Amino acid sequence: MQKTRARRIGMAATATLATAILAGPEPLAAQSGADVARTYREAHEVEILHDFAELLSYPNRAFTPDIVRAAEYIRGELEQVGVEAELLRIEGASPIVYGELMVPGATRTLGIYVHYDGQAVDPSNWTHAPFEPTLYSAAMPAGGEPIPMPDPGDAVDPEWRLYARSAGDDKAPIAAILPVLEAFRAEGVQPTSNLIFFFDGEEEAGSRNLPAYMRQHRDRLEPIDIWLFFDGPAHPSGRPQITFGVRGSMGMEVTVYGATRNLHSGHYGNWAPDTGNILARLLASMKDESGRVLVEGWYDTVEPLGDEERAALAAMPDWDRELMRELGIIRTEGAPQSLPERLLVPALNVRGITSGNTGSLARNVIPNTAVAALGIRLVLGNESGHLRQLIVDHIEAQGFHVVSEDPDMETRLRYPLIAKVTGGGGSPAARTSMANPFAQSVMAAASLAADRAFGPGSLVVAPGMGGTLPLTPFTELLGKPAIVVPVANHDNNQHAPDENLRIANLWYAIDLYAALLTMPRTIF
Amino acid sequence: MQKTRARRIGMAATATLATAILAGPEPLAAQSGADVARTYREAHEVEILHDFAELLSYPNRAFTPDIVRAAEYIRGELEQVGVEAELLRIEGASPIVYGELMVPGATRTLGIYVHYDGQAVDPSNWTHAPFEPTLYSAAMPAGGEPIPMPDPGDAVDPEWRLYARSAGDDKAPIAAILPVLEAFRAEGVQPTSNLIFFFDGEEEAGSRNLPAYMRQHRDRLEPIDIWLFFDGPAHPSGRPQITFGVRGSMGMEVTVYGATRNLHSGHYGNWAPDTGNILARLLASMKDESGRVLVEGWYDTVEPLGDEERAALAAMPDWDRELMRELGIIRTEGAPQSLPERLLVPALNVRGITSGNTGSLARNVIPNTAVAALGIRLVLGNESGHLRQLIVDHIEAQGFHVVSEDPDMETRLRYPLIAKVTGGGGSPAARTSMANPFAQSVMAAASLAADRAFGPGSLVVAPGMGGTLPLTPFTELLGKPAIVVPVANHDNNQHAPDENLRIANLWYAIDLYAALLTMPRTIF
Repeated sequence: MQKTRARRIGMAATATLATAILAGPEPLAAQSGADVARTYREAHEVEILHDFAELLSYPNRAFTPDIVRAAEYIRGELEQVGVEAELLRIEGASPIVYGELMVPGATRTLGIYVHYDGQAVDPSNWTHAPFEPTLYSAAMPAGGEPIPMPDPGDAVDPEWRLYARSAGDDKAPIAAILPVLEAFRAEGVQPTSNLIFFFDGEEEAGSRNLPAYMRQHRDRLEPIDIWLFFDGPAHPSGRPQITFGVRGSMGMEVTVYGATRNLHSGHYGNWAPDTGNILARLLASMKDESGRVLVEGWYDTVEPLGDEERAALAAMPDWDRELMRELGIIRTEGAPQSLPERLLVPALNVRGITSGNTGSLARNVIPNTAVAALGIRLVLGNESGHLRQLIVDHIEAQGFHVVSEDPDMETRLRYPLIAKVTGGGGSPAARTSMANPFAQSVMAAASLAADRAFGPGSLVVAPGMGGTLPLTPFTELLGKPAIVVPVANHDNNQHAPDENLRIANLWYAIDLYAALLTMPRTIF
Repeated sequence: MQKTRARRIGMAATATLATAILAGPEPLAAQSGADVARTYREAHEVEILHDFAELLSYPNRAFTPDIVRAAEYIRGELEQVGVEAELLRIEGASPIVYGELMVPGATRTLGIYVHYDGQAVDPSNWTHAPFEPTLYSAAMPAGGEPIPMPDPGDAVDPEWRLYARSAGDDKAPIAAILPVLEAFRAEGVQPTSNLIFFFDGEEEAGSRNLPAYMRQHRDRLEPIDIWLFFDGPAHPSGRPQITFGVRGSMGMEVTVYGATRNLHSGHYGNWAPDTGNILARLLASMKDESGRVLVEGWYDTVEPLGDEERAALAAMPDWDRELMRELGIIRTEGAPQSLPERLLVPALNVRGITSGNTGSLARNVIPNTAVAALGIRLVLGNESGHLRQLIVDHIEAQGFHVVSEDPDMETRLRYPLIAKVTGGGGSPAARTSMANPFAQSVMAAASLAADRAFGPGSLVVAPGMGGTLPLTPFTELLGKPAIVVPVANHDNNQHAPDENLRIANLWYAIDLYAALLTMPRTIF
């Protein structure tokens, strides 16, 4: 049932011709790439929407046979718009959809990262089948109603939402680049950079084969000057955003010990070690009430921000108050620092505590252990092994003997306080300097596209985001800068049921690609 | 299949006669009650064991039809030895087996509390069916092997163990009082006190109908001068013990709040409230590292110990070191105070903490709540409502707004720190003064029995135990002193599979009853 892009291009060519006739003759060079893409999009909105729906109809869970079918479809689509495309394969891994578009006279090479795999779905939680894309007149919570897909000639409302798994995370960038390349080819617009497409099929499964793929194809990736990460949602204010870094992530676990078994709180309470209190005292020693981590040396290795980063932080919209209202809190860690500022220092959070039971399961015992799971977020300059050691040192400084296995009787009878520490490792942070000349070009192009799509000055420039993306294989293995250029609406329900994309954000993505692909050849 | 006690008495009478003949004629008055019981027991060990096994064969979970059959059997046994017995009933409650043995010239009335109900059983965890009593040559962990029940004339080894549910907790005292009364009747020994038997059928289910039973039968219980609680295990050293008090028990729960939902630790970590740390700081504020509770006023209402209690504490065996070795700890709360001393001050323990997840379930979230279940043990002088208020005051003093329901949005947006506090109530502590004249008599009698069964000076006298027994209905409702006189071996596996009684402890129980029932008529 698959339409071929060739057939669709046939339809498109006719429409373009009509547009061209209406607009009258104009020298190609006089029309910017951004204009060409915009004109093309406005003439083909219905068709672009149908193509997007078709792309969304391919199930795409990593490591399933589905993922290969989805990869092959995307490879075919890239080829239709002139990209030399192939599937990179490693046994047992999901394929990388790889493509090249080399341009004579290009002054730089852009790496375009998108992931075409999606989160797992439980269809019973979805309003519609997750791989049967369904158009809505607006977002469901805003009262949107399902509407039929438009026919050629119908007007498309940019407030429409297309519901399907991966609509926002992360097939929208694929749906946007294809018509841009198609428009450029149709109108003879040359990108100003070489393009290397590298579409990940395992991002939602941890991208664990990414480094192997990159090592294996190092030669082909080496020419890339800057990686563009098309992933993630825009700023919660609704404004578009670009981001220059991600935090790293590390999980650790601390277990403290009381007696060898749960003890009756009546027979032993007031005498037996109170594991909950022991753990509480340890955790309380790690962070003060203002949110400052008290582990010695915690902030010492943080790479200082540059002038550009500080300026960008100052220019970011003040969204904290809005967010706090939404989340029902009036007190934040590190206040009065803002959330964007706080994302640029390493975090130490308790992501879980387990000891005995609470609620109806609570019993009259003194639990024999209390366990805390710690979530550490690293920033540029942090090394996970170093931070782990600082935490171990801190625990020892509180009087604990630190072990890596449950203590045996001999150990128990030697040390008054014992803590088992496990975990560590994880991924480091990555941040691209805003002073990087390639980054400056990208920022300028994104700013132009944002101005055009959402109004002047609408682009939010964030020095760093809080979460973790697989940026580091690129920055670590290849030593290249990377910038995150999200296009999805903030409320796209990524990772959740009823994922969706606001059509206006697809139009923005098209503007954004057009601007990025036609950045001035001059490197600042 | 039930033997009647009459038939067994027939057998017994013959044996007694034989013993009497061997011992030669002796004036009855010259032989003490203790001697009579001892002589009788030595002549009837096999039979007493068979009777005990029969008693243990009655399933006895509270609130089941079983409990009524067990009660009726016990009532019948009491009647066989001359006790005027009946079942007290409240609809929906398990019966009380009530009995009276009034003695002309008695100078006091003893209330004899035993519970004939047992903990629930999961037979799949037992070596043998829990209601098919099985004799062992020694304790299972000590290499004991199953042996057949002895035949008349066989020697009985006091190190044997009888395995069955309720062997230790709490049918042994019933199995001991019956032959004592039988011996007394056969030999014409009169108890020196009136006896009122009050056998609880719901202790393991919380004795929640006990106060109602006591109110309903207040007139019959009013004459009791002192209650004897035959329950619990002996001292872990193996020495017999009597105890003058129990702690009260109260459960509370504290929940602290972060955002309205779990937050992604990457996107929000370092800014969103870290519920685990907030709870940790609160718990850490409640008790210092030495185990001292820091809640203001915590120790202020504790009833001071008298000279007798202090002397008894000083005389208790130093068992802490042994216990610490067994439990794998070298640090206790309140050190260098001993466990028995620590049981006389109110305890505040963390019996559970729940927040997010740990181990393989840990996720990269900042949990929206953290919950601690607190276990409070009260001592004499403490009032549960008062201690609860001290804890609430303490939480407020740490800056929290205290609520009793999950906070609504308005509350959330008004207070930076919110704690929900639930629970409270529970049971108060009870302690009988060692200076009480009835208590003095009991102590003297128990001391004699212990000397006889386990050697001179073997009785351990504890001013208080840590756990909670339903003493308080007796002391609160009727205003009478109560003393706990346990008979079971410490390793009887009460509440657990393979519950058992060491036969030597049954012999001790017989000596103990004989001594208590023939205490000098003089009240000190």
